[in-house]
Amino acid sequence: MLHVVIMAGGSGTRFWPASRAALPKQLLRLAGERTLLQATVDRLSGLVAPEQVLVVTAERLLPTVREQLPDVPASALVGEPCKRDTAPCIALAALLVSRHDPEATLAVMPSDHVISPAESFRGAIRQAAALVDAQPARLVTFGIKPTYPAEVFGYIQQGEKLADAGPAVVNRVAHFKEKPPAAVAREYLAAGTYLWNAGIFVWKARTIIEALLARQPECMERLQRVVAAWDRPDRDAVFAREFAAIHGISIDYAVLEHARDVVVIEAPFGWDDLGGWSAVARQRGTDSEGNTVVGRHLGIDSVRTIVHADGDHLVVTMGLKDMLVVHTPDATLVADRAHEESVRRVVTELEKRGWRDYL
Amino acid sequence: MLHVVIMAGGSGTRFWPASRAALPKQLLRLAGERTLLQATVDRLSGLVAPEQVLVVTAERLLPTVREQLPDVPASALVGEPCKRDTAPCIALAALLVSRHDPEATLAVMPSDHVISPAESFRGAIRQAAALVDAQPARLVTFGIKPTYPAEVFGYIQQGEKLADAGPAVVNRVAHFKEKPPAAVAREYLAAGTYLWNAGIFVWKARTIIEALLARQPECMERLQRVVAAWDRPDRDAVFAREFAAIHGISIDYAVLEHARDVVVIEAPFGWDDLGGWSAVARQRGTDSEGNTVVGRHLGIDSVRTIVHADGDHLVVTMGLKDMLVVHTPDATLVADRAHEESVRRVVTELEKRGWRDYL
Repeated sequence: MLHVVIMAGGSGTRFWPASRAALPKQLLRLAGERTLLQATVDRLSGLVAPEQVLVVTAERLLPTVREQLPDVPASALVGEPCKRDTAPCIALAALLVSRHDPEATLAVMPSDHVISPAESFRGAIRQAAALVDAQPARLVTFGIKPTYPAEVFGYIQQGEKLADAGPAVVNRVAHFKEKPPAAVAREYLAAGTYLWNAGIFVWKARTIIEALLARQPECMERLQRVVAAWDRPDRDAVFAREFAAIHGISIDYAVLEHARDVVVIEAPFGWDDLGGWSAVARQRGTDSEGNTVVGRHLGIDSVRTIVHADGDHLVVTMGLKDMLVVHTPDATLVADRAHEESVRRVVTELEKRGWRDYL
Repeated sequence: MLHVVIMAGGSGTRFWPASRAALPKQLLRLAGERTLLQATVDRLSGLVAPEQVLVVTAERLLPTVREQLPDVPASALVGEPCKRDTAPCIALAALLVSRHDPEATLAVMPSDHVISPAESFRGAIRQAAALVDAQPARLVTFGIKPTYPAEVFGYIQQGEKLADAGPAVVNRVAHFKEKPPAAVAREYLAAGTYLWNAGIFVWKARTIIEALLARQPECMERLQRVVAAWDRPDRDAVFAREFAAIHGISIDYAVLEHARDVVVIEAPFGWDDLGGWSAVARQRGTDSEGNTVVGRHLGIDSVRTIVHADGDHLVVTMGLKDMLVVHTPDATLVADRAHEESVRRVVTELEKRGWRDYL
């Protein structure tokens, strides 16, 4: 049976002050009326039942995640006691699902991307599941056709094309490539055989478990102890102790780069990782002056400006060009959009100054 | 005896959103730790006793004024039921003071200017009072040596110089001039014989009352009814009814332009009418990057920017040049400083939209 694992532990800092330690990107309504996490779950409707969804988030985010996802059973919300990258997250999810469904197929996906149309996404996941059913040892990844020489994504170099793989184009993976510098990214784009790694995977639970047992035995040993304690009263203590002792590592490093039968589906759906405020503007659209506004705004002689304000707070902009104004009850960011990539610096600076209330 | 009348009914809109209908400029801490009104009262220390001070403000501002001026007797705080310009305000103050001190000399002054040093101001007021003692029919005004061709002030054309008038230069007033267009302002500046009208006056209460009786008899009749009712239980009702029926007119139009013995003292003190945020920056000074900050601020690559934030709210600016950021709990203004003069437009626009909560 198909199960979906949503990775919702991210703590991005590109949307500060809207995003905070206690309210990261995936829990925000950045692209519409639903939060990115809610939209991720909504998108599964018709693909899997809510009981087939497992959400792995950070422990401190559990209350908010529970509130945002009332239809997902509380037992399907897992809160990691600390951050340990994607491999331990995926391994734990695979072990938990396998307890009741040893033959489960897993679709693993981030919670903070914008994907549409949903039907096309579901079709691609079904196609991936069929590929895995045909070859249970196969690992399926998803790649996005690059539109510019991005330096912020990992790339997948496509190899030989798979015949009769289904509606979307599927290739063997020749190589996984780390986030490249600008010049290399331009080469990848020019070559036409590279895709952005979307971080979406489909595989059999037992295949990924076997791969992890082979390459990350200590991690798996600790996680098996966690799963053994899952229905015991000491679960939280075991989870906290064992998880903290695990070495954080990404699934790409831990497994994908070493696996033999890895294929990549060229995503037939629209995709945006929503890497910053300009991506939000792209998703939400702009008015006739090029402004994108969420919240209460009065603009005078203002163009190409993004305004994001909580609640009833009024933001008035006058004479602004290519600016970003984000207002929250305790902190406001005003920035030139050319500085969008530097929003993380604010978080670093706040940490340095010990202004933890604003993180 | 010398009495001081402070006119504190202004409702300036140049400092929105810091200034509001309920908290106009004079009640804000724009230039330092004390509000402009408090600084105006502080400046009188050593010149007159608190009991010799009369503050005329708007009725709706009385509670805040009372809070800001705990040393001024509550009976010395007068709240106008509506706005009627300076002549009715000064007339009422003169009538009220005359009840107990018919020979009073009045120093009348705005509450929202920055003046220093205080001792030099007090000396100039004493000099004016002496001029009035010598010639009780005389009206003394104060002029500021222009430093640029300002269009926002009225001008006083100086006539013949008064000999032996005291330490500060005193001239007869040749003419009062309204706020001039740019070309005319440049002529005034070049001529060297014009001063800005500071709106500070010294005269005998009975002299101004006589002048007003002659030129504004209806206004005076109504105000005499108000003063007659001052210690009666129906005072508020009479005040509201009679004051509303008065025609608003400035003391310049009503009296000064028609009076014969008017002199102008060239102010020996520093003066700033604090006409906008750049004036605030001038008063408060700037840091090494040219920024002026009130409140909690983190600046990254920001220069020549004014930040004014209430309480603990954090304002982060990134990549700003010559900008203005004013944060209050319910509204935030972000503007190019080139638009500083247009802040009033915001208030007009809010009125038009019926967003009265933000006024």
